[in-house]
Amino acid sequence: MIPTEETKGAALKYDRVFNFSAGPGGLPLEVLEEAKEDLLSYKGSGMSVLEMSHRGKAYDGIHMQALADLRSLMDIPDDWGVLFLQGGASMENVLVPMNLKMEGSTPSYVDTGYWGHQSIKHAKKLTDLTVAWSDEANGFTRAPDDDEPEFTGAENYVYYTSNETVDGIDYLRDAEFDSDALIVCDASSNILSRPFDLDKYDVIFAGAQKNQGPAGVATVILSPQALDIAAKQDLPLMFSWDAAHKGHSIHNTPPCFTIYVCGLYYKWLQRQGGIEMIQVVNERKAKLIYDAMDGSEGFYKSKVPKSSRSLMNILFNLPSDELTEKFLEDAKVEKMVTLKGHRSTGGVRASMYNAFPETGAVVLSDFMNAFAERYG
Amino acid sequence: MIPTEETKGAALKYDRVFNFSAGPGGLPLEVLEEAKEDLLSYKGSGMSVLEMSHRGKAYDGIHMQALADLRSLMDIPDDWGVLFLQGGASMENVLVPMNLKMEGSTPSYVDTGYWGHQSIKHAKKLTDLTVAWSDEANGFTRAPDDDEPEFTGAENYVYYTSNETVDGIDYLRDAEFDSDALIVCDASSNILSRPFDLDKYDVIFAGAQKNQGPAGVATVILSPQALDIAAKQDLPLMFSWDAAHKGHSIHNTPPCFTIYVCGLYYKWLQRQGGIEMIQVVNERKAKLIYDAMDGSEGFYKSKVPKSSRSLMNILFNLPSDELTEKFLEDAKVEKMVTLKGHRSTGGVRASMYNAFPETGAVVLSDFMNAFAERYG
Repeated sequence: MIPTEETKGAALKYDRVFNFSAGPGGLPLEVLEEAKEDLLSYKGSGMSVLEMSHRGKAYDGIHMQALADLRSLMDIPDDWGVLFLQGGASMENVLVPMNLKMEGSTPSYVDTGYWGHQSIKHAKKLTDLTVAWSDEANGFTRAPDDDEPEFTGAENYVYYTSNETVDGIDYLRDAEFDSDALIVCDASSNILSRPFDLDKYDVIFAGAQKNQGPAGVATVILSPQALDIAAKQDLPLMFSWDAAHKGHSIHNTPPCFTIYVCGLYYKWLQRQGGIEMIQVVNERKAKLIYDAMDGSEGFYKSKVPKSSRSLMNILFNLPSDELTEKFLEDAKVEKMVTLKGHRSTGGVRASMYNAFPETGAVVLSDFMNAFAERYG
Repeated sequence: MIPTEETKGAALKYDRVFNFSAGPGGLPLEVLEEAKEDLLSYKGSGMSVLEMSHRGKAYDGIHMQALADLRSLMDIPDDWGVLFLQGGASMENVLVPMNLKMEGSTPSYVDTGYWGHQSIKHAKKLTDLTVAWSDEANGFTRAPDDDEPEFTGAENYVYYTSNETVDGIDYLRDAEFDSDALIVCDASSNILSRPFDLDKYDVIFAGAQKNQGPAGVATVILSPQALDIAAKQDLPLMFSWDAAHKGHSIHNTPPCFTIYVCGLYYKWLQRQGGIEMIQVVNERKAKLIYDAMDGSEGFYKSKVPKSSRSLMNILFNLPSDELTEKFLEDAKVEKMVTLKGHRSTGGVRASMYNAFPETGAVVLSDFMNAFAERYG
């Protein structure tokens, strides 16, 4: 794909920019156009989805369709649960130990980066736990092989983070750990970016604001076993997966508009050909950037080995802080924004979720080549 | 005010309806128009607020301005806390006992209706408590006088609901209970509809979706004393008012777009002349409906005495279920929707929050008079 002024112009319609934000991330332009079209009156209802009763027919249709489309995109069986909950992935980090509590068992966590580490901190407020594997001593560079984590055998669940947003580390596979416990996965930054084989999971949760919609809702996918255990807990309504499941996530006023935009996103994903097709595009986008890195003769460096390279969050460092600053400034002139690395890592981070246009990856790759040639 | 076809037409621009929903409720048309205008690219940023990083300058400006405008509208002193949290008022019902826990103290609750009753159920999962006053035996008809609730004297806090959305019951004042404990108020359905004298409160919380914005965020207002007690708790990040306060509610990814729309709503309230002026309009709107009830010679009946009549949620019953059905159907023809009472009460409920246009109240009042004349 060659980035002509024409293709670039189409991607930047309405004076938009290439938004490399790690989250909330960019949305498909078609989704925004559709939301805009119906913002004052949704499909003849005479009201905006922003002001719609969650108990009315119009919203009920939106809500149930979004749930159904997420099920269909991820091939989620009927006896599994799919929830929309508020509070993002951080709230789920707290709800996981509450909803999966089992007398005499404690969980094991795999510590692969910033968010895996945070989840351990959150969970420790509520449960004893074991860290089955950690790469902290190396400053977090990779995901473990399946046989590396050491489990106690007394776990109620095993917890891991399928893609580390801050560190650019991905398992690039459905992990198959040597454990009979429930498998819990924070997939916030790579859900829907590739197929997930549900046989390998019991709980998959994800904040919507990276690969499926705006900030303000998290999706929680639960196996029948996880549902059974959650149903045995005696929790306040707002902490209970069971209550949310039985109430179709309308057990309380849901964030209606946020879920509506997720629903538009799911329809957009379907129009792209579903998850298998979006994976192909995601791989193409990431390859452009990694090729520019690998071809730069060490000008762009990453701590992440090829076996753990995230397709969603690509991190690299330049030879100096001055060059990093210059890179970020010049990129901005080319309409490429939010490329700055997380405060804990520094450097550059290019996040390219499902909605990120392929043209943007071409433009960044070309820009990287030219910048390395000039300053390398 | 006479409802001409012209005034009615202006209120119903874009084929909109009169939305009497109890929540999520209607938004000001100007707010929706502004959100629509900027939906593809917010003020030259090249991106929608729906896809904006919560750590970026553009969103930071939106967020801090919304907090500042809410402070200004409600005259909230600098040493008080103002939070935006996910999970609605129901989540706060759970966080209240967690954040205000004090060794050796238990709270007292005032039980005035559906939501007060729910809050007791939620809180009981987390704390012992006393019901200081309840009108349950009478089917919930009124708010108590200040001296009616009986307190233990050993409370960490006293909890009440300033307006019962489902039952149409309002204190119509800042309650002044005979208690030195912290005063906690669920003001979900009347916050910003009239001035609140903050000297009489320590915690005021409210889901946004009635009087200040879309569903998906709750505002929590905390006195210095409440902040102090919350700071002493050892809670997971997502349950902690202290963490939210110190992090300006960006301690975690906030529901950015929802808060942005609340911010537009606050600006709109300022343009209306602030809370004092909106109160005058709210009183005028409610009077139109109550006058139609009182003038109907018993055709429209309410269980609520005048001293507790809500300005936000007006409930009435017709002589028969058939007439209620007919009323709701005919109203729909006149573009008046979501007038059906809550499943627990039946009858008719007209919710008219801040954003509900005065013309709509005139149209409903005229309709009520004509309907009573025809079928009474």
